[in-house]
Amino acid sequence: MMDLVLGRTYEGQNCSAARALEVVGERWSLLIMRDALFRGTTRFSDFQRSLGLASNVLAKRLDGFVENGLMEQRVHPEHPDQQEYVPTDKGRDLKPVVLALTAWGDRWAAPNGPPVTFEHEGCGGKVEAHLLCLKCGRSPDLAHVVAKPTRSRRRRS
Amino acid sequence: MMDLVLGRTYEGQNCSAARALEVVGERWSLLIMRDALFRGTTRFSDFQRSLGLASNVLAKRLDGFVENGLMEQRVHPEHPDQQEYVPTDKGRDLKPVVLALTAWGDRWAAPNGPPVTFEHEGCGGKVEAHLLCLKCGRSPDLAHVVAKPTRSRRRRS
Repeated sequence: MMDLVLGRTYEGQNCSAARALEVVGERWSLLIMRDALFRGTTRFSDFQRSLGLASNVLAKRLDGFVENGLMEQRVHPEHPDQQEYVPTDKGRDLKPVVLALTAWGDRWAAPNGPPVTFEHEGCGGKVEAHLLCLKCGRSPDLAHVVAKPTRSRRRRS
Repeated sequence: MMDLVLGRTYEGQNCSAARALEVVGERWSLLIMRDALFRGTTRFSDFQRSLGLASNVLAKRLDGFVENGLMEQRVHPEHPDQQEYVPTDKGRDLKPVVLALTAWGDRWAAPNGPPVTFEHEGCGGKVEAHLLCLKCGRSPDLAHVVAKPTRSRRRRS
């Protein structure tokens, strides 16, 4: 039912954020991807241990990720009786989304300071998400970032 | 129920992404914020028209945003019989999250191209979210961005 409602949004609004949320907007989705992307979790049992969520929900999310091409399901190389779930390029591209969410949480919902920092592997530097203006090369003030439609939002067939 | 489950995650994992999702992870939350942040929507009726969602759900989300300090509720200056909902700094800080989601959707879920671009108001340049390494100053390859705990993840009282 909710999918149908969001479906209408997607068709009416032709918005990439809405389309993204159709794939990763379900409760738990981004936390599962966070574990896969930043903690290297691949096994069902490890996701479940980390997140403590019902196995039917976890199975549904992982199946959805495979179906939508965010993860590949394959036999675990060291445990042939188990499957592992490994992010694809499409899944890995969600890293900036998790980073942006984490940055917001660090600023507004982490009274004891950021529990995790993101690091440039090899270099050791801290990695942050920044907005960049491709014309002036500066990081614009958030108040001055606006959305412009690239064409009519409503498509009629 | 889901809140209780996610509550456990939050306590056990001490993760800013999880905390962020507690505030904006509910279905529709980020689309409502998108309308507020990038379309200048402030009125209940305009949110409802844009999103086409049930008024009880919209009311619950907007009340939640006010309660969590993401929006301020006030009398509409031109329509004193109506309320308007205006993002606070805390709410406006979600712009990079919406941008990151949109960028992912543009890349992986917009077969007809990006419906919207983000612009640096005044300058006119296109705005993109970039990952930046604060040490080497480069934009690291996603495969080389890793999470490092800043302290023990589990807190015991």
